[in-house]
Amino acid sequence: MAGKKVLIVYAHQDPGSFNAALKKAAVEELSKQGCLVTVSDLYAMDFEPRTMKKDFMGPLSDPEHFNYALEAYQAYQQKALSPDIMAEQEKLLEADLVIFQFPLYWYSLPAILKGWMDRVFCQGFAFNFPKYFESGLLKGKRAVLSITTGGPANTYSKTGSRGDIRCYLWPIQHGTLHFCGFQILAPQISFAPDRVSQEEREGMVAAWVRRLAAIWEEAPIDCTAAWYFGQ
Amino acid sequence: MAGKKVLIVYAHQDPGSFNAALKKAAVEELSKQGCLVTVSDLYAMDFEPRTMKKDFMGPLSDPEHFNYALEAYQAYQQKALSPDIMAEQEKLLEADLVIFQFPLYWYSLPAILKGWMDRVFCQGFAFNFPKYFESGLLKGKRAVLSITTGGPANTYSKTGSRGDIRCYLWPIQHGTLHFCGFQILAPQISFAPDRVSQEEREGMVAAWVRRLAAIWEEAPIDCTAAWYFGQ
Repeated sequence: MAGKKVLIVYAHQDPGSFNAALKKAAVEELSKQGCLVTVSDLYAMDFEPRTMKKDFMGPLSDPEHFNYALEAYQAYQQKALSPDIMAEQEKLLEADLVIFQFPLYWYSLPAILKGWMDRVFCQGFAFNFPKYFESGLLKGKRAVLSITTGGPANTYSKTGSRGDIRCYLWPIQHGTLHFCGFQILAPQISFAPDRVSQEEREGMVAAWVRRLAAIWEEAPIDCTAAWYFGQ
Repeated sequence: MAGKKVLIVYAHQDPGSFNAALKKAAVEELSKQGCLVTVSDLYAMDFEPRTMKKDFMGPLSDPEHFNYALEAYQAYQQKALSPDIMAEQEKLLEADLVIFQFPLYWYSLPAILKGWMDRVFCQGFAFNFPKYFESGLLKGKRAVLSITTGGPANTYSKTGSRGDIRCYLWPIQHGTLHFCGFQILAPQISFAPDRVSQEEREGMVAAWVRRLAAIWEEAPIDCTAAWYFGQ
């Protein structure tokens, strides 16, 4: 939708990858709509995933007992967070929609993307108490996970060897993004692109583009336990 | 138990932290038993969490379409993985019991520990097909998560605001450790140490030590969906 702002947080090492193709297709489709699209290309940025004392530009509030979360909360208020964190927070504040594009690693986020969440979603910026879930500080924004898997769809069903993929998304979609106030759109899951033909991969990219064409009209999921663990 | 080998994978930045106290107590108790204890202190090691091309010492098998998992599988077979990965794999091969000591970050692993799993548990070393779950390549070893949380226990119950903590452990205990063949011992969860008195913190450390005193006799959990999502 013209004028909307989109942030794509993209975590793949290779511009020739299927993840890169999905990211590129999203940039093109959303730009064609007149959206302003920003990409955080985490590997290309050599984004730091580790939560360390050097994230704080000022003095620590409790150097004897270092607590990253508490120091981040204080540093956020004092505008003393590391510039790379503040740059990502700026992008987030602008965004109406955030797309996370990544391959599933151990049924979860690749470490570089986990570190992005660990460092960027700090107290004061993304949530506060009692401002979380429906009143999280990023409310009004939407988030969608665009995931590629190694295994095929049937192994990620309730009766498959890996179990229902929704159970793996609970800590990310609900525990993190929803906690920060995001409304969650249904995940876009491209199963096992390495195991299918080039034609089928192109079909998956085309399906993503078709979805993005109407994404501004989509209703968010009901991000409660029932969606993840229900029948 | 005398002669047993234990690896503690420890992810906290600060030697003065409660996580450090739990780690130190475990080293002391297990050493007293006559175990050989090794600690991977991830922040002190400045452990690299990112999965990158530089993890592979030899030529890539498919430089046009970089797939980290496939390259890691090949490099493992050719003994061409980065020395820091091989060093952790050596420690794992030796270990009878692996303790993961960490604060819960966004209902999951801190990025530095997620990256340890992403990089160390590669195909060929930790699993292969069809060698996974009960026949995973690390079978015969036991793993236990020793976790600290920010929030108190009642918020992590089925009716609490965060939901049952077991649901958050499914990707880690089942999807990763059990997948690699580990038997899973019940998690040791120290709730909200920052919110309680010094005496209560000492009580939590003492409880961990008491448990470790008898840990070699413990039966593993039944690591199936029922444990995580059942009644």
